[in-house]
Amino acid sequence: MSGASSRLRNVLGHLLSGPKTDNVPHHFSHLSPTHFLERAAAIEPNAEAVYHVTASGEVLRRSYIELADRARGLAYYLRKKGFKRVGLLAPNTPAFLEAIYGIAAAGGVMVPVNYRLKPEDIAYIMDFAEVDSIIADAEYEGLLDMYRKTHPSVPVIVDLVGLGFRGQSLIIPDNGGIRGKLCGPYDDAVLEGLNRDRETGSKGWADLASQRVANEDDLIAIPFTSGTTSKPKGVMYTHRGAYLAALANVVESGLNVPDGRCKYLWTLPMFHAVGWTFPWSVCAVRGTHVCLRKVDYPLIWKLLKEQGITHFNAAPTVNTLLCAAAEAERLPRPVRVTVAASPPTAHLFEQMTNLNLLPVHVYGLTETYGPITKGYVLPEWDPLPKHEKYARMARQGYGFVTSLPVRVIKPDQSEGVLVDVAKNGREIGEIVFSGNICCKGYFKDAEATSKLFAGGVLRSGDLAVWHPDGSIQIQDRAKDIIISGGENISSVALESMLVEHPDVLEAGVVAVPDSHWGERPKAYLTVKEERKSLRPEDVITWAKHQSSISKFMVPREVEIVRELPKTSTGKIKKNVLREWAKKGTPREVVLK
Amino acid sequence: MSGASSRLRNVLGHLLSGPKTDNVPHHFSHLSPTHFLERAAAIEPNAEAVYHVTASGEVLRRSYIELADRARGLAYYLRKKGFKRVGLLAPNTPAFLEAIYGIAAAGGVMVPVNYRLKPEDIAYIMDFAEVDSIIADAEYEGLLDMYRKTHPSVPVIVDLVGLGFRGQSLIIPDNGGIRGKLCGPYDDAVLEGLNRDRETGSKGWADLASQRVANEDDLIAIPFTSGTTSKPKGVMYTHRGAYLAALANVVESGLNVPDGRCKYLWTLPMFHAVGWTFPWSVCAVRGTHVCLRKVDYPLIWKLLKEQGITHFNAAPTVNTLLCAAAEAERLPRPVRVTVAASPPTAHLFEQMTNLNLLPVHVYGLTETYGPITKGYVLPEWDPLPKHEKYARMARQGYGFVTSLPVRVIKPDQSEGVLVDVAKNGREIGEIVFSGNICCKGYFKDAEATSKLFAGGVLRSGDLAVWHPDGSIQIQDRAKDIIISGGENISSVALESMLVEHPDVLEAGVVAVPDSHWGERPKAYLTVKEERKSLRPEDVITWAKHQSSISKFMVPREVEIVRELPKTSTGKIKKNVLREWAKKGTPREVVLK
Repeated sequence: MSGASSRLRNVLGHLLSGPKTDNVPHHFSHLSPTHFLERAAAIEPNAEAVYHVTASGEVLRRSYIELADRARGLAYYLRKKGFKRVGLLAPNTPAFLEAIYGIAAAGGVMVPVNYRLKPEDIAYIMDFAEVDSIIADAEYEGLLDMYRKTHPSVPVIVDLVGLGFRGQSLIIPDNGGIRGKLCGPYDDAVLEGLNRDRETGSKGWADLASQRVANEDDLIAIPFTSGTTSKPKGVMYTHRGAYLAALANVVESGLNVPDGRCKYLWTLPMFHAVGWTFPWSVCAVRGTHVCLRKVDYPLIWKLLKEQGITHFNAAPTVNTLLCAAAEAERLPRPVRVTVAASPPTAHLFEQMTNLNLLPVHVYGLTETYGPITKGYVLPEWDPLPKHEKYARMARQGYGFVTSLPVRVIKPDQSEGVLVDVAKNGREIGEIVFSGNICCKGYFKDAEATSKLFAGGVLRSGDLAVWHPDGSIQIQDRAKDIIISGGENISSVALESMLVEHPDVLEAGVVAVPDSHWGERPKAYLTVKEERKSLRPEDVITWAKHQSSISKFMVPREVEIVRELPKTSTGKIKKNVLREWAKKGTPREVVLK
Repeated sequence: MSGASSRLRNVLGHLLSGPKTDNVPHHFSHLSPTHFLERAAAIEPNAEAVYHVTASGEVLRRSYIELADRARGLAYYLRKKGFKRVGLLAPNTPAFLEAIYGIAAAGGVMVPVNYRLKPEDIAYIMDFAEVDSIIADAEYEGLLDMYRKTHPSVPVIVDLVGLGFRGQSLIIPDNGGIRGKLCGPYDDAVLEGLNRDRETGSKGWADLASQRVANEDDLIAIPFTSGTTSKPKGVMYTHRGAYLAALANVVESGLNVPDGRCKYLWTLPMFHAVGWTFPWSVCAVRGTHVCLRKVDYPLIWKLLKEQGITHFNAAPTVNTLLCAAAEAERLPRPVRVTVAASPPTAHLFEQMTNLNLLPVHVYGLTETYGPITKGYVLPEWDPLPKHEKYARMARQGYGFVTSLPVRVIKPDQSEGVLVDVAKNGREIGEIVFSGNICCKGYFKDAEATSKLFAGGVLRSGDLAVWHPDGSIQIQDRAKDIIISGGENISSVALESMLVEHPDVLEAGVVAVPDSHWGERPKAYLTVKEERKSLRPEDVITWAKHQSSISKFMVPREVEIVRELPKTSTGKIKKNVLREWAKKGTPREVVLK
């Protein structure tokens, strides 16, 4: 934490602390997105808040008052037990949603953890974050065995609901009253909390940190980065930052649908940057959370066709596979798809649009609460050729409505007045952010925090050009750029070009050492099911005739594989591709 | 200002002041809606920002870069001259919009004044607010003559553009360069400011209070209440409050239209609560401001039919007359109409819906930046009979997304723990607000401020019931309730009933003294053009058979008049009706 930050913290904390109004002016209340759930349940208690397909394929539905009651129960339970920092290990379940609200309402901080990590990485995060309790889905509980050996005193509250409730109703309609049988320790905890509230005067939400939090600059969550190159880092989210990011997502993704309520499909993992703040955004407009335990393309298409889904978020790789699925067909009504993570291609946007999956193109980092820029689709592009229009949609665009503007600065600056690159669409620099949807820093890592904010702005580490129209376009992660004969080659630009080939499904490009040029690009491709006959040399010949790249950029090495290595959030693992390039592609992934 | 408020102010001011990042943490920036214009111009410079029908009937169009350039010019001019508190006397003109941004960007505070007030009231406000300069529309400049006599040193910058520019282009495309001829002193000031920026290094918006304001708790505007019963009071708006209110209005009115930009028609006066913060909301989503100098029903219908208007805001009385206009016909596409001010009737909502003018029902005060509650239309009402559905739409509803919940408290409480009325739809209490879209208090009036916040909440002075579903419904202003034989009679409920009569256009009900009952209701009505033959006794007979009111509420006195007296914001002037009841209706308004 920087000196200025800790000063603000101390002063605000002293001046504005406490749930009472005594110390805050009457026209001021601390911003917190936790209030959105209490508010939704008060306005539309019977509206469907949760639709969950369990591991056993059953459908669990909960109304807003049920979701709010359960979150409140969890909050009172956590407060009774004194738990303040709660680890979360679960797929997209109702319990995850409840915990996002319940933990914050209890004045605690959530630590959502990626359940696709190895047990030792999960143990590292839980230990480093100093969690005092963990809520875990029954399917993934086993991943905690290693951690529990060294931390036997940290209780793990296991949720069994998501596995399948076998016809039991798990609804807790009011304090103490339940319908049906409870389903495991997590449900027991919720009930214990509701009883606690009842025994202590039924103060309900009024006594929780919902309408009034101690300080809007306090932490609400510590999600961790994926940590492909080093130990995962804990990213500090504040109530204020989460609130302003969540509101921006409502506006930018258009979750406030006129004459109705959005129906949001949870394909994006909630553990990832707290689901890009969408758990809060969707409740702000009383939308339905359609929660999926895993990305299952036939199921997603079934829900899109039958359940009136209005919105979902997904990385380009998920969208690519969704468009390629056998079940894909043009939807009768448009669905807004917020796309981020690795840079999407113009080709993907065209495919999606043809299926009535209308892209909302955003970009951000875990360090920016997920999305912080949007590629606005401008009416003035209407006369442009289709290909040019989709190419513009693939740009990362401009800062969000609640952000300060995004900039692209010349590389290697970390002090003094930072200099922007020219807005010419050619000069490459680093994308930097500022404003309220920047994280507070890295948890217990002053050195990494000061590096993150070197020069007073949040450094993305991503390289981009700045177009004359003010939009930015990512070229590469700093470490992914290919420098060949002194020229920069963008692996992203090559990948965008390669997926235009009619037989290619996905592409990953990395630098390999070259004795003459220093580096040269090498492409790994997957092909569409029915096009397995594609040969690498066909692709190279085809690439030489593409106008979107310069001749010197054409990859002279192409390898076709069964699948590409990906992170849990759908980004291609470039470090694994580099490993393959160095040591040879593993036998099991070689296609031909 | 309360003690706590001034303490916050001092500490924040000290800690977080200055445009540089030195004193604020990297993850924090002060909230200010002024940034929305700079941002809109950066994203979509050529999008139409302003469409203005001048007094001479010409159409003036300005793009976002033009609007932003002119606001920037004004800001540099004001800063050069040292003007910090700027009076605004104009109808809905481009200059008004520019001033809203330019004054704040210069670090100043705007004081918008109702041009329908008498010269002595305008003089009172300008004097009391201690303005150091005034921007005035040429048509209304004369209203300042009285003020200028006593304040000859305060410069009045006159805008001639809105009168009609007679084919001259008034665009200032970049620093110092102009196309066409300038049009009066206001244009000269804008140009002088742009030159100033150029001469001092062309720092543009970066050197203004847009991305960074000194403190989000600083004042941005002091609009005045209409002051029907006492001197007008100056309501203090902060950057933070205006920002959060403006964002809420984007979400609640749905200004972020998918696949396009909103086209917002300015029927609501901008001087009224700074146009309910819509000058900021519309720019936040790069919408077009269609500015009207006056409410002209044939022109409004022409614009609705021909210009693709998507949204407008208007008081019920404006909507009533709009629905009754000869030009009224069902629009091919829905237009969202945000309705507030005096409580609208179910009948009006039905009429509007039939014309495809879909109501967004909000409620608020000047003290709450305009709208702060919304009557959400819930899908669960679908099975209800039509009449019941419209009746629910006429409720004032629930607190906005960025507000804390609205409450209804038992009357006559001003200290300790305030007690809510029962949520039974019957017990009447006072509506109170809290949270960030409450004003900071009254300018230079500690006593009125402390009364406004008596008990720690913002007192509306409006009486309401609280329904079992949590929505509130206004019964009356405290002073408008009729107490007859110990029973409360809501003048609003009577008015809602009376306009259901097929011949009645508008209704205003007041209490008149009654020797037996204490008070009794008296109704003043206007009738539809073709129904002039309606007799008062017909209405009374009809009213006796209406189920929506109790028998004892039926007004025994009805008078039909040519027109009802209204405030500049479209509310019926109850004090004038009481005067009529006492001294007799003036001969010129008596219809029969």
